[in-house]
Amino acid sequence: MASTANQIIHCKGKPLVIEEVVVAPPQAMEVRIKILYTALCHTDVYFWEAKGQSPLFPRIFGHEAGGIVESVGEGVTELKPGDHVLPIFTGECRACAHCKSEQSNMCELLRINTERGVMIEDGKSRFSIKGQPIYHFLGTSTFSEYTVVHSGCVAKINPSAPLDTVFVLSCGFCTGFGATVNVAKPPKGSTVAVFGLGAVGLAAAEGARFSGASRIIGVDVNPNKFEQAKKFGVTEFVNPKDHNKPVQEVLVEMTNGGVDRSIECTGNVQAMISAFESVHDGWGVAVLVGVPSKDDVFKTHPLNFLTERTLKGTFYGNFKPRTDIPLVVEKYMNKEIELEKFITHSVPFSEINTAFDLMLKGEGIRCLIRMKE
Amino acid sequence: MASTANQIIHCKGKPLVIEEVVVAPPQAMEVRIKILYTALCHTDVYFWEAKGQSPLFPRIFGHEAGGIVESVGEGVTELKPGDHVLPIFTGECRACAHCKSEQSNMCELLRINTERGVMIEDGKSRFSIKGQPIYHFLGTSTFSEYTVVHSGCVAKINPSAPLDTVFVLSCGFCTGFGATVNVAKPPKGSTVAVFGLGAVGLAAAEGARFSGASRIIGVDVNPNKFEQAKKFGVTEFVNPKDHNKPVQEVLVEMTNGGVDRSIECTGNVQAMISAFESVHDGWGVAVLVGVPSKDDVFKTHPLNFLTERTLKGTFYGNFKPRTDIPLVVEKYMNKEIELEKFITHSVPFSEINTAFDLMLKGEGIRCLIRMKE
Repeated sequence: MASTANQIIHCKGKPLVIEEVVVAPPQAMEVRIKILYTALCHTDVYFWEAKGQSPLFPRIFGHEAGGIVESVGEGVTELKPGDHVLPIFTGECRACAHCKSEQSNMCELLRINTERGVMIEDGKSRFSIKGQPIYHFLGTSTFSEYTVVHSGCVAKINPSAPLDTVFVLSCGFCTGFGATVNVAKPPKGSTVAVFGLGAVGLAAAEGARFSGASRIIGVDVNPNKFEQAKKFGVTEFVNPKDHNKPVQEVLVEMTNGGVDRSIECTGNVQAMISAFESVHDGWGVAVLVGVPSKDDVFKTHPLNFLTERTLKGTFYGNFKPRTDIPLVVEKYMNKEIELEKFITHSVPFSEINTAFDLMLKGEGIRCLIRMKE
Repeated sequence: MASTANQIIHCKGKPLVIEEVVVAPPQAMEVRIKILYTALCHTDVYFWEAKGQSPLFPRIFGHEAGGIVESVGEGVTELKPGDHVLPIFTGECRACAHCKSEQSNMCELLRINTERGVMIEDGKSRFSIKGQPIYHFLGTSTFSEYTVVHSGCVAKINPSAPLDTVFVLSCGFCTGFGATVNVAKPPKGSTVAVFGLGAVGLAAAEGARFSGASRIIGVDVNPNKFEQAKKFGVTEFVNPKDHNKPVQEVLVEMTNGGVDRSIECTGNVQAMISAFESVHDGWGVAVLVGVPSKDDVFKTHPLNFLTERTLKGTFYGNFKPRTDIPLVVEKYMNKEIELEKFITHSVPFSEINTAFDLMLKGEGIRCLIRMKE
């Protein structure tokens, strides 16, 4: 019953290799998905470089993708073969306190787990080469023609949506877009600062444009990002390296007291502090998106809070994967949001190393990887 | 046109003295108020002890009070002699960006100013002794039979409300109550922790009771506060001194992952950190109320934000003095909130030093000071 497919396997410290892997059938509450399109995200690179806590190799990377359900395991009733889906690196069981809360998307059962390389049903992997297990990554492992995912980590979407475009919703786009529209919630006409102009930051800017912000200030230490960011509605740019004072002071001066909202998409703790201290007293809200290092400490004078500023963090833009992502696809279908501009390159699966090169060089935004060619 | 009245004057380092003071008539946009009831608040003591940045003496303290308008200055149209009012230590001009924002109560013109001892109209004091000016404090100076206040710092209230009870709304009660109901906004049935069980903390607990919280956990290093706090709906008590681990860990264990809301009313920066780190991931909100010291630093791991916790601060419970305080008086008149229990002692003006003694010993909550006897 196993199907065979071309897979990328990575062994620590070695270049990527494509191998023939056996993909076992889905077990209870699991689905097997034929991946059609995927892309590389910084999180893959981060764990590929083994900066994560306990590297688990060999494993199959990839978590931003779109595909079609091939088969479903026992107990799966909401998905069937042929459904168009986006696998998501975090899930929604709909039974835990987090799923029942309107605020949270941090499902207790299926919350992102960067350490677990196996399925929760039986603690085993569905991938193998000559009987030797190959680990999963983020429960998605989309650098594979077929993958097995928990059904709670699958968003069933409108089958008329182009999978080679809407696949970006499964990670980067929603993380940034949701940080703005679900968490920062800028009122129409407000001023929004976005720290970091990578895919997530540009999606945060797209969220600000969607919300009717009148000024969108991009902050990045790489001025090459500015030209591209104009397509995403960013109206002004600040390079902290151009100033001999903290960037929050620059922003406060530019905006007569501070921005209404700021979104931090770099993961640098100094940028987090700047993002918070650049919001206006009385009503300013700063939202942290970028993932910090293990030993980072956020520091500020508590009076910055007492003068009525708010600091929040978000995970996957506070979107619930199964409930909300299909609705974001509809926003794209209704032309309320633009996704094409995020996809700057495209390669066949066999040239996946090009996607790594582009990301390491900081070129482009997303490189579409086509699995079938 | 000046009226003469008995005033408390304080000179740094000396005991309180009552002196005969001349109170000049109100100038443009000002009102002269006959104070009937007042009370001592920690802020008075803090500045009496000259811990504030630049001590300004001699001055007339007092900012929690109720009285009746005696006369109004030029341009005052919304107040007239005979109106029942609460003078407020911060104002509402209704013209600035903060007043126009639904979120903020930090009026640009009339925001609290602990340094200015004069009226904004002409930079002069309305108090004098033998021609020598005596400074104002917080724009209210209610330890006086008559005082002059900017009309933007006066809440006009229902004349049938008992001034000897609703006067507590002009500072402590609203600061704590508003922190809960306007900022933390606990959903019905939630668990709320209150750090510090003084007047502000007990008012925060009253806000939690009003909001339908099912568990209200009081945190204080003084166990004597616990018995009294039961009257304010506090259901459980934690004394950080009883535990050999951080109090946030105790709260997280007691509540299966964290409280839904926490309100910090001590001003101690370690308590602020504990209050934040004790809220549940996914939806927890911590609100800072207590005023920190100048050199304090709030520190936490940024991941505590990224796991969807929110930290906010508030000033005067986010109430707009003129717009909102009359409505809180109506809540009292409708028996939705209880105020009598905050007033544990009562003395005539001549015995005001008793109020200082009680506060310095941490006894009782509010000591009503009766100006007329």
